[in-house]
Amino acid sequence: MSEQTPSGTQVCGHGPGLFVAFEGGDGAGKSTQSGLLAQWLTEHGAQVVQTREPGGTTLGRTLRELVLHGRDGSVSPRAEALIFAADRAHHVATVVRPALSRGAVVLTDRYLDSSVAYQGAARQLGHDEVRRLSLWAVEDLVPDLTVLLDVPSAEGRARRGAVHDRLEREADDFHDRVRQGFLDLAALAPDRYLVLDATLPADELAAAVRRRVSPLLHRSAGRAGQEPR
Amino acid sequence: MSEQTPSGTQVCGHGPGLFVAFEGGDGAGKSTQSGLLAQWLTEHGAQVVQTREPGGTTLGRTLRELVLHGRDGSVSPRAEALIFAADRAHHVATVVRPALSRGAVVLTDRYLDSSVAYQGAARQLGHDEVRRLSLWAVEDLVPDLTVLLDVPSAEGRARRGAVHDRLEREADDFHDRVRQGFLDLAALAPDRYLVLDATLPADELAAAVRRRVSPLLHRSAGRAGQEPR
Repeated sequence: MSEQTPSGTQVCGHGPGLFVAFEGGDGAGKSTQSGLLAQWLTEHGAQVVQTREPGGTTLGRTLRELVLHGRDGSVSPRAEALIFAADRAHHVATVVRPALSRGAVVLTDRYLDSSVAYQGAARQLGHDEVRRLSLWAVEDLVPDLTVLLDVPSAEGRARRGAVHDRLEREADDFHDRVRQGFLDLAALAPDRYLVLDATLPADELAAAVRRRVSPLLHRSAGRAGQEPR
Repeated sequence: MSEQTPSGTQVCGHGPGLFVAFEGGDGAGKSTQSGLLAQWLTEHGAQVVQTREPGGTTLGRTLRELVLHGRDGSVSPRAEALIFAADRAHHVATVVRPALSRGAVVLTDRYLDSSVAYQGAARQLGHDEVRRLSLWAVEDLVPDLTVLLDVPSAEGRARRGAVHDRLEREADDFHDRVRQGFLDLAALAPDRYLVLDATLPADELAAAVRRRVSPLLHRSAGRAGQEPR
């Protein structure tokens, strides 16, 4: 269950494709940026698979539905973590890895950092345990690049409105912990992360993402035995 | 994720009840023996919860159904292991632990040894990894006693009929590996296991189970602050 420690962005263990994850809190603009990158990549001739977690497969959508609207009342915390890990395992085995093997660029809206940041923030389970569980589920497949769309606390508060009561303050603390969870993960492997201020204009963010992805595409093409584009 | 190493049968970490698992291959007589023990315990005034895995909860039955008859075709091996672990986590959190807390005797038809023996036998995933996953799911709750109903290979073959072709031989090998998986687990913690030859008459087996369970009941009652019966 050990993570690979790639030098630079050269991650072993998957096919010739390129694996990019978009992470960040709700409303940070992950799907917007994933969509803009997908469009640019497609225009430049890349084979792109745009996907998401949880619910990137039929099984995954059923599992997510079970957690959110189960008939059995609330789902116990560890069962919930295991169900999300099952969703991820199936998504990676049936969507992500096959696409990487045929040389596609896979863009996923959320990946294992989301589980670590949210479960850790919810204080139900430890960061390390959730991370180990996810890494086992995906047989240690980590993204070549994770784009973290970071929403600074002040902006997050403004988006969520003024804080008046205890519950709202708790929600505020919760979002602070989620944010810090993402930033801590980025700090552990800075070579594999691009951390952006999500309050910047979407086109500026998209340009920054393209600048970071472009050289990775060339290396990816090299792995596939193709000429760099 | 470490297992407790209880001395004798005194397992810490759960309420005053007693937790007994019945393990063994299909057709070994687990539900028969669980039922006979439940009847005897009830006649002697114990509060008994007779349950099973997988599918001991509404959520668990849905999860099992998803694995066996999913709309998404086959479920990838790790997703399957995680779904069964989720079933177990929810079962323990919502059925087993609450019953133990109120002093009940919980009898389960299959528990984590089944995952280890079958997944290990299927060679998809390592014994140790499946065991760690299950122990994490249940927060290290191990049974006070596991009754292993062992079906010797010769008898198993006879029950399954003569071996003629390669597929049947593979199935035969598979059952041998499952059996060995159970026996290996029993050998690791003999104080917590009662290994019985499942080909003996049911009433003989039931008597052997009662002899082993009886002193545990007294200790369990002691933990609950009651007089030994």
